[in-house]
Amino acid sequence: MSPRLRHLTTLEHLPRISIERLLGRAEALRDACAHGTRKLDVLAGRTVLNLFFEPSTRTRTSFELAARRLGADVINFDLGFSSTSKGEELYDTLHTLEAMHLDAIIVRHKEAGTPDALVRHAMSGVSVVNAGDGNRAHPTQGLLDVLTIRQHRPDFENLTVVICGDIKHSRVARSDVHALGTLGVKEIRLCGPAALMPPADEFPQCRYHNDFDSAIEGADVAIMLRLQKERMTSADLPDEAAYFNRYGLDARRLARAATGCLVMHPGPLNRGIEIASEVADGAQSRILEQVGNGVFVRMAVLCEVLAR
Amino acid sequence: MSPRLRHLTTLEHLPRISIERLLGRAEALRDACAHGTRKLDVLAGRTVLNLFFEPSTRTRTSFELAARRLGADVINFDLGFSSTSKGEELYDTLHTLEAMHLDAIIVRHKEAGTPDALVRHAMSGVSVVNAGDGNRAHPTQGLLDVLTIRQHRPDFENLTVVICGDIKHSRVARSDVHALGTLGVKEIRLCGPAALMPPADEFPQCRYHNDFDSAIEGADVAIMLRLQKERMTSADLPDEAAYFNRYGLDARRLARAATGCLVMHPGPLNRGIEIASEVADGAQSRILEQVGNGVFVRMAVLCEVLAR
Amino acid sequence: MSPRLRHLTTLEHLPRISIERLLGRAEALRDACAHGTRKLDVLAGRTVLNLFFEPSTRTRTSFELAARRLGADVINFDLGFSSTSKGEELYDTLHTLEAMHLDAIIVRHKEAGTPDALVRHAMSGVSVVNAGDGNRAHPTQGLLDVLTIRQHRPDFENLTVVICGDIKHSRVARSDVHALGTLGVKEIRLCGPAALMPPADEFPQCRYHNDFDSAIEGADVAIMLRLQKERMTSADLPDEAAYFNRYGLDARRLARAATGCLVMHPGPLNRGIEIASEVADGAQSRILEQVGNGVFVRMAVLCEVLAR
Repeated sequence: MSPRLRHLTTLEHLPRISIERLLGRAEALRDACAHGTRKLDVLAGRTVLNLFFEPSTRTRTSFELAARRLGADVINFDLGFSSTSKGEELYDTLHTLEAMHLDAIIVRHKEAGTPDALVRHAMSGVSVVNAGDGNRAHPTQGLLDVLTIRQHRPDFENLTVVICGDIKHSRVARSDVHALGTLGVKEIRLCGPAALMPPADEFPQCRYHNDFDSAIEGADVAIMLRLQKERMTSADLPDEAAYFNRYGLDARRLARAATGCLVMHPGPLNRGIEIASEVADGAQSRILEQVGNGVFVRMAVLCEVLAR
Repeated sequence: MSPRLRHLTTLEHLPRISIERLLGRAEALRDACAHGTRKLDVLAGRTVLNLFFEPSTRTRTSFELAARRLGADVINFDLGFSSTSKGEELYDTLHTLEAMHLDAIIVRHKEAGTPDALVRHAMSGVSVVNAGDGNRAHPTQGLLDVLTIRQHRPDFENLTVVICGDIKHSRVARSDVHALGTLGVKEIRLCGPAALMPPADEFPQCRYHNDFDSAIEGADVAIMLRLQKERMTSADLPDEAAYFNRYGLDARRLARAATGCLVMHPGPLNRGIEIASEVADGAQSRILEQVGNGVFVRMAVLCEVLAR
Repeated sequence: MSPRLRHLTTLEHLPRISIERLLGRAEALRDACAHGTRKLDVLAGRTVLNLFFEPSTRTRTSFELAARRLGADVINFDLGFSSTSKGEELYDTLHTLEAMHLDAIIVRHKEAGTPDALVRHAMSGVSVVNAGDGNRAHPTQGLLDVLTIRQHRPDFENLTVVICGDIKHSRVARSDVHALGTLGVKEIRLCGPAALMPPADEFPQCRYHNDFDSAIEGADVAIMLRLQKERMTSADLPDEAAYFNRYGLDARRLARAATGCLVMHPGPLNRGIEIASEVADGAQSRILEQVGNGVFVRMAVLCEVLAR
């Protein structure tokens, strides 16, 4: 049995048994909810704080719902996003929050590595959960993605997964690769314009593609990433239509994938840029399941790090 | 018995029995509160989300208090009000929130019809409550207004009500007219500068006035609307003093109304523009009762739409 | 026995017995927390509203935690800080909130005297707690400071306390002087650049210093204030280094104080301006204890004003 996690900052190097325990717990919570359990009290008396240095209403709300459904209190520590809090200033904020006897801090920050820096500087019993740091990691997104896949295709050793879009700047892609790799999927393909691909040696276990038509060939899962529109030009793609033409997922391209290929996207969608509505709203789309699983995964993570 | 409402987007065409049931429930909650009941748990385990695309601290707070006093959890989904969320983007937000298993969405949006569009696109069991859409409807304001009137003057069939101000752009006026009409008041008079009056055929059941002195003559209830100051010039009223002179409610004008005429205003007040302090703070003012009733009406609405 | 407080706007003229009762209650809550009590329900069913006209994430969070740990609901009434709400507009907001049946309003406002104006205009049973008004008072900060001192040095009649920085504009300094004076400390020294010192007759019970080296000589407690950087020039101190050189607390200066001199700061720290990291993070620093005591003091105040 692997030791309980006290923090969750990345899925990289997380043992398979830890990931599977979190997924199993999320599934148990999903089942309880399906049978009518609306609210648990396992974290009654605990306080969880959302410390978001980047705005993200969706992720913040998902964590807030997760914490409340476990009976915890939630504080939104709103920094106005003008703060570029780093170094000593960041650690002073951490220590101030610790001194107020918080139990967990959910942190999002544009600098990669910030959650780990908080873990290193934490003095007391506070737990740190990463809600996204720079281009580096978004571990609860990675977990909810593999939970969603597992629900439909538990045979990971047979699966080919393609992740398409701005891989280079995507913390979602990184956490997905880490989780999928640990769980033993057969093949992971990364696809995007050359300018938006990661260094060639970053993911030796993955296949790199620049042509989406060939990348999606026979894939069992297609994870489409949200494109930051300002990055299209750096990719020599002059407009949205050009990007969609080369890297958007529409019904024609989806037909090249394996039958029943799962369509996933971390949201929010840029319809007509990285994904066509016919696919986003189609029978193979798992996008809303991902959202629902996000709450259960975050409940599972909070239970794990805050268990006594 | 009328069927339970699952959503509340407008009072137009709402059956009298439904309005009266909501008012009766609001009164029962007010009585319970007066006898010391601080908090109920009828909505324990339920989650209500405030989805405000226009800022409104007062209305948001009133809904938040209502939901919490019924034991529900409340999430404020703060969009920063820079979002002009419409169409697909809006529905994606809706579906994302549904996938998180929310029970009710309280929505305010500057586009008329947005709450109904959400109702049409809602896929699961979520309830939609309109907290104000464009110029169209503000149903809980309409309900709290008639609740306040009923408390003092339950004989609606004898009442003359005057609504004065920028009728054209007022969702409050529209919801008031719908509720007052359904409950059978004798006469509704709409009064304002010609440029701020609605089309002549919009309210065939009302009398239109441009002269407030004659409009208030013998009225039993005077509902003063908040003036958006930028609209004064379009009404050919060059300044606040000119507006107050012609359409402001002061003691002299109130004396033309029926004895004991109720003075109402949805707030926040522009003192000295649409209402004089001597009247706003006077013995006939019901303005703070309206605020108190607002919480009870919103509790009643949440009970109605979220009852199992 | 002194009567129960219904409001807390300032520590000036507050009887010693009232201050000591609040400190005693805060200590009892701290002990209960140390023995594992996470949450009480003494304020279940009560609603506390944060009405902040100046941003302060730390103080707002401390009050929010305090209220929730007593079982109260908390509403953040966010005014966007663009509002300069004064006079009638402020009182209309107050009366609106009273009409919603709130139990306590925690108010911060840049105008000195605003909380007392709210107390004078409050019509119902609502309690007002000052979270900082202009340069005038920050009573819960004063209480948490004396609580922190008392924990280490209960022999107030022997203590020399130096407060250093921008005394003139500091509500913290004023509340500290009031609390320390009432509790009978031997000597209070105020130290800062001449331009940042209060009028000579404002604190006749204190000694005024412009030279920090002599002011700290033999002190048992050093309270360092946060410098607003824009005030350095008005103090003829051209830059941060110049300020630190004359008024910053470093190890060399701390060595001039009495052995074991307590180092305090209301936060957030300007490291290298009013305090050196070696001292802020050193063995004599009580800065994080202050933060922790802040929550207990605010719990004690809420219990006091909201007790039935």
